[in-house]
Amino acid sequence: MSRTEEEPPEAPPERRAGRRTGRRPGSEDTRGRILGAAREAFGEGGYGGTSIRGVAARAGVDAALVHHYFGSKQQLFLAASTFPVDPAEMVPRMLAGPREQMGERVVRTVVGLWDRPDVRPLLLGIVRSATTDPVAAGMARQMLAEGPFLALARAVDLPDAEIRATLAGTQLIGLAISRYVIGLEPIASMSADDLAAAVGPTIGRYLAGDVRLTTGGERG
Amino acid sequence: MSRTEEEPPEAPPERRAGRRTGRRPGSEDTRGRILGAAREAFGEGGYGGTSIRGVAARAGVDAALVHHYFGSKQQLFLAASTFPVDPAEMVPRMLAGPREQMGERVVRTVVGLWDRPDVRPLLLGIVRSATTDPVAAGMARQMLAEGPFLALARAVDLPDAEIRATLAGTQLIGLAISRYVIGLEPIASMSADDLAAAVGPTIGRYLAGDVRLTTGGERG
Repeated sequence: MSRTEEEPPEAPPERRAGRRTGRRPGSEDTRGRILGAAREAFGEGGYGGTSIRGVAARAGVDAALVHHYFGSKQQLFLAASTFPVDPAEMVPRMLAGPREQMGERVVRTVVGLWDRPDVRPLLLGIVRSATTDPVAAGMARQMLAEGPFLALARAVDLPDAEIRATLAGTQLIGLAISRYVIGLEPIASMSADDLAAAVGPTIGRYLAGDVRLTTGGERG
Repeated sequence: MSRTEEEPPEAPPERRAGRRTGRRPGSEDTRGRILGAAREAFGEGGYGGTSIRGVAARAGVDAALVHHYFGSKQQLFLAASTFPVDPAEMVPRMLAGPREQMGERVVRTVVGLWDRPDVRPLLLGIVRSATTDPVAAGMARQMLAEGPFLALARAVDLPDAEIRATLAGTQLIGLAISRYVIGLEPIASMSADDLAAAVGPTIGRYLAGDVRLTTGGERG
């Protein structure tokens, strides 16, 4: 989830020293090819349906090399789930503009992320894995509870930012799973504009509108 | 998904004949125990994480007996995903009462289904499997696109019933996955009353309110 790259756990000292002054292009290519293959594999089969051996075959390298660069399957999954963009950087753009259209901007941003070819396999991998694997479930929880939706809810500055952010998260993860994972029609074929128009008001209400909770009276 | 029980595919003729006049209690118990074990196993591990051998061990029978009663793993999954209640029978109750509270009644009904001990493992099994298995994904699509939400949207009798029903489906599947599968807090701990109050208006708008689509102008 963070963009910090981990040191290969079994890298010998001379390799560690070498990396400080620049890695050879060949090993960087190999590492990147393994990472790309891992993203594809996790994206298609989820954590449970992916093996180090399968990733190695896909990348055209020996399984020992995958272990050398990334350690365990779990460490490989963590590395493959590192976002090429920082979602926090998208928050100001979603906040800018008329408040009553913020929900539409959020839907457009989420759909835009899923439509990026360098992001979709990674999100598919997390979602496909989160339903059965505890590590991936933790990533999904963190993404929904502590990610950009919470930053938005806090910026709006109404009570219950955590509830508001996670309510928005339930709608957006449900939309993404319906559209990109199970292929629910007509949701899967609708344009980003139509989705923003239809679902945007939901996100707007959760983050910045009238959310009633029976236990605490009216909010917002 | 339907409540029709399939004939065991490899049942010998004398067994088929016997079933017409009533099965021995012993075999009925065994079949039911295997089915219960299968629901638990699919509910915990999804389709990919479940084996006939594992189900047999859980039920305390030989794997050959599971094959005898249910055939393949896919046929076992279909049998284990048979609802003990017909969701269509819940539609009149969700429609009854003030229209502006229909969304809350729908949320309460869905949460109530997930909270039934004889239904939750089955829904968990479908959801955990739907992210990686095509058969389970088809079940999830059918449940969301042709199930009770479409019946509700059709009863409301506004344009775009299919879009309205599946929009409601995206919110409700996202709520269920957040609450029951990945354990997103505070959603996972909120009362059914609070969820109905917070999410009900979303479902009400999708099914019976103002849903704008850019391509077709305003609807509803």
